Amino acid sequence: MDGAPPPASPAGLSAYVAVSQLLGLTLLATTGAWLGRYRGGVAWHSPLQFNVHPLCMVLGMVFLQGDALLVYRVFRHEAKRPTKVLHALLHGLALVIALVGIVAVFESHRSKGIPDMYSLHSWCGMATFVLYLLQWLLGCGFFLLPGASFSLSSRYKPQHIFFGIALFALSIAACLLGITEMLLFNIRDSYSHFVPEGVLANTLGVLLVVFGLVVGYVLTRDDWKRPPLAEELALSMDFKTLTEGESPGGGSQ
Amino acid sequence: MDGAPPPASPAGLSAYVAVSQLLGLTLLATTGAWLGRYRGGVAWHSPLQFNVHPLCMVLGMVFLQGDALLVYRVFRHEAKRPTKVLHALLHGLALVIALVGIVAVFESHRSKGIPDMYSLHSWCGMATFVLYLLQWLLGCGFFLLPGASFSLSSRYKPQHIFFGIALFALSIAACLLGITEMLLFNIRDSYSHFVPEGVLANTLGVLLVVFGLVVGYVLTRDDWKRPPLAEELALSMDFKTLTEGESPGGGSQ
Repeated sequence: MDGAPPPASPAGLSAYVAVSQLLGLTLLATTGAWLGRYRGGVAWHSPLQFNVHPLCMVLGMVFLQGDALLVYRVFRHEAKRPTKVLHALLHGLALVIALVGIVAVFESHRSKGIPDMYSLHSWCGMATFVLYLLQWLLGCGFFLLPGASFSLSSRYKPQHIFFGIALFALSIAACLLGITEMLLFNIRDSYSHFVPEGVLANTLGVLLVVFGLVVGYVLTRDDWKRPPLAEELALSMDFKTLTEGESPGGGSQ
Repeated sequence: MDGAPPPASPAGLSAYVAVSQLLGLTLLATTGAWLGRYRGGVAWHSPLQFNVHPLCMVLGMVFLQGDALLVYRVFRHEAKRPTKVLHALLHGLALVIALVGIVAVFESHRSKGIPDMYSLHSWCGMATFVLYLLQWLLGCGFFLLPGASFSLSSRYKPQHIFFGIALFALSIAACLLGITEMLLFNIRDSYSHFVPEGVLANTLGVLLVVFGLVVGYVLTRDDWKRPPLAEELALSMDFKTLTEGESPGGGSQ
């Protein structure tokens, strides 16, 4: 990377990333429109405290988490260390924002006398948040702290990548469950008459899925992955020879 | 493959596949227990027709779809053509069973005067089913029918694999939404008191997620993929040289 400018990203990658960012902003605008137009808006010290929850979860657990995953593709030809730090910072910010959203729903429940943690949404959402925090801590320990063994962190990396994408998908699923819960609690009787609030919230759900698909496609497309460092390549060859010993690598269907 | 017996699958792969099958059977048993114990059972010509829907969707869109994806790992050293046919047959069976489940819910709605297709569950579920059918038709066209160009089908394959896994994840998300809807329609007031039906259905949701994670892990683990055929490898090398021209392949984070 020294001297020569880094090679440009493929045009397709840039287009997909641009679409993902437009979708992410649309997610936030749609959530804001739903809460502002139909749910009275958002405020911390008021009966509107609950509404902080969906806004924070869409911003933290979906948009920022998605962007944290994308940095390795957007900066695929940049130096690795700053990319890694940006990845960790964005995930850290996502965690803090999600924590605010979780505090909001617990405080709102307490003030209204509603029990906590009984629904499938709360089970999935809380499990996702706790595992996401654990994944962040493990990631910092293995990839950022000095002293982590290179061979150990290289063996953890495939797990980190798999659970990173899985937790992103789970975060979106938890949001879909939350949307369904909110609609069935608030507009149960009119939902089936295609009232505008129901259609808007359903559309938010579809946009969340589309955002997840676009980010997932960018992350998993083979020729958009970061070219491995020379020592990673050597280690992966050694490891493959040790564990497999017969495949020419790569993978067929 | 001729003459010598095929190499055994790694012990880890066999263990994960065994766990996935136990989980799949547990999913069916849990769905059956929920419907049988708390929802009056399952029957076609009766007010219980609705209950055919969750049972068919869990069996078709989750268990059988998951198993159809796994055949390429379970039979990774077998000849490709029969593995491909089994993959298509299992997906075809999943589609037929899912169609029965969809007919059940539409007929049940009509007999009770409930509108169709207004909820996020129905939007996500129907989109998933239609795309799954389309994916199956494209898969048969590109990979099974004689006459499909090898170079064209090789270029479609990464898309087929990505959407295959994405549709499997979406199927599970749609099931979670369906569970939440059923609970909020049937036990809305007692759900927050942790009644047994709510806990059982939440547990079914968690098991669906765990099944998805286990299948997803088996599918995406690099060293469990099918070794590519010689001509696939040659083509992928040519294609990489044409489109990329600078990466040694593989992928870093």
